[in-house]
Amino acid sequence: MQGNRLHFEALTGLPMVRAGDDLAALICTAAERADTRFVDGDILVVAQKIVSKAEGRIVKLADVIPSPAAVDLARETEKDPRLVELVLRESTDVLRKKPGVIIVRHRLGIVGAQAGIDQSNVEHDEGEAALLLPLDPDASAARLRATLSKLTGKKLGIIISDSMNRPWRLGTIGGAIGCAGIGVLDDRRGQHDIYGRELKVTMINRADSIAAAAVLVMGETTERTPVALVRGFPPEESAQSARDTIRPLAEDLFR
Amino acid sequence: MQGNRLHFEALTGLPMVRAGDDLAALICTAAERADTRFVDGDILVVAQKIVSKAEGRIVKLADVIPSPAAVDLARETEKDPRLVELVLRESTDVLRKKPGVIIVRHRLGIVGAQAGIDQSNVEHDEGEAALLLPLDPDASAARLRATLSKLTGKKLGIIISDSMNRPWRLGTIGGAIGCAGIGVLDDRRGQHDIYGRELKVTMINRADSIAAAAVLVMGETTERTPVALVRGFPPEESAQSARDTIRPLAEDLFR
Repeated sequence: MQGNRLHFEALTGLPMVRAGDDLAALICTAAERADTRFVDGDILVVAQKIVSKAEGRIVKLADVIPSPAAVDLARETEKDPRLVELVLRESTDVLRKKPGVIIVRHRLGIVGAQAGIDQSNVEHDEGEAALLLPLDPDASAARLRATLSKLTGKKLGIIISDSMNRPWRLGTIGGAIGCAGIGVLDDRRGQHDIYGRELKVTMINRADSIAAAAVLVMGETTERTPVALVRGFPPEESAQSARDTIRPLAEDLFR
Repeated sequence: MQGNRLHFEALTGLPMVRAGDDLAALICTAAERADTRFVDGDILVVAQKIVSKAEGRIVKLADVIPSPAAVDLARETEKDPRLVELVLRESTDVLRKKPGVIIVRHRLGIVGAQAGIDQSNVEHDEGEAALLLPLDPDASAARLRATLSKLTGKKLGIIISDSMNRPWRLGTIGGAIGCAGIGVLDDRRGQHDIYGRELKVTMINRADSIAAAAVLVMGETTERTPVALVRGFPPEESAQSARDTIRPLAEDLFR
């Protein structure tokens, strides 16, 4: 599962993605134009935003009727009650709140600000809109992988990435919210170090590590290059998913 | 500050590092043997472990006398009291504890398990030992950069990496604990999206993102390749340090 050399490259030439678009077809067309030929083992990191857009996860704020709980939380956090309503609908738990910040546990298990809902680079013909995370990003990744495998004939891995905040460190890093066809956790528990002592910290989150560097080449603010190609890993057959990277609730020491 | 293509490669052929070793010289020798020629803009990611070893940050556990507080915490967490004593000396705050786990705020501001103290791949002639983080990893990075610049004549960036745990996600990822000569935070606040709306999440932690992928090519368990070369960024002059990536205490919602 290890690559001694890894190459990350933004895939250029994708059009703006709209609801109903076939991402696999768009990616193949862009790759052909860029003269990029996929090989077995290539991993495609795809920004959550275009997956959500293709899946029609855009919500017009004017259509959202905030609940009393959302109105209260919006007052407390100085946010738009309609946006807060969407945050609450997408979450199982509000972990922290203060003016300008709502940290929730998304129903997918991901802890972060505003349930991953984004308003930048989101257009809607009829006014303000918000973009939700895909309903099931692991399933989205699996579908994308199946279609791309058919179109290209290659064994590819897929990561759907999103920018994540962290409680004690400044600046976001890319993380994996959906995966297919890659080993997301490199579990070396039970292995030994070079002196024969059992290793302690031994489970590496490969999916997040790959997503982090991929987001650097994507340049997330402009959304012009929301797909990155990662080359250097051997082809993998893995049934692991991004859901496997969520720490179980019972192990959460910071609830 | 953006690279559209990034290449990560492990630097092979480094010897086992011991206290007093000149890391810059070891890296140059290994690079020469591997026929690797550095170019302006190259970033070297160096595992914390070999920096700590070179700086003699190894402690023989038999020499550590645990305080009463360490003895109590060791009982509560089922750990070696001498190790816990070292954890407490290295930290400003114990955030969470349970059997097998002590989460602290390291005096450098880094929140994590066991104050970054590692016992795997640490040898000592006189019995069990532990390896502490460098005293000032940003200063270590700056020194390494200065010596490497002199030896190579190139404008290089340095990141000292360590594996980090996260409260809500399984598996460690590499992060930056020391930096020199790179922009660690890519601050795009005030910039606008493609529809003219002001961006919200706009500060990317480049240092952590680079460290994450670098650790993948290093293969951290064997320690055979504790240095990675990252190529693709233009040369940078930045006075930012890893310390700049620590979220201020006043913003810590999870104390």
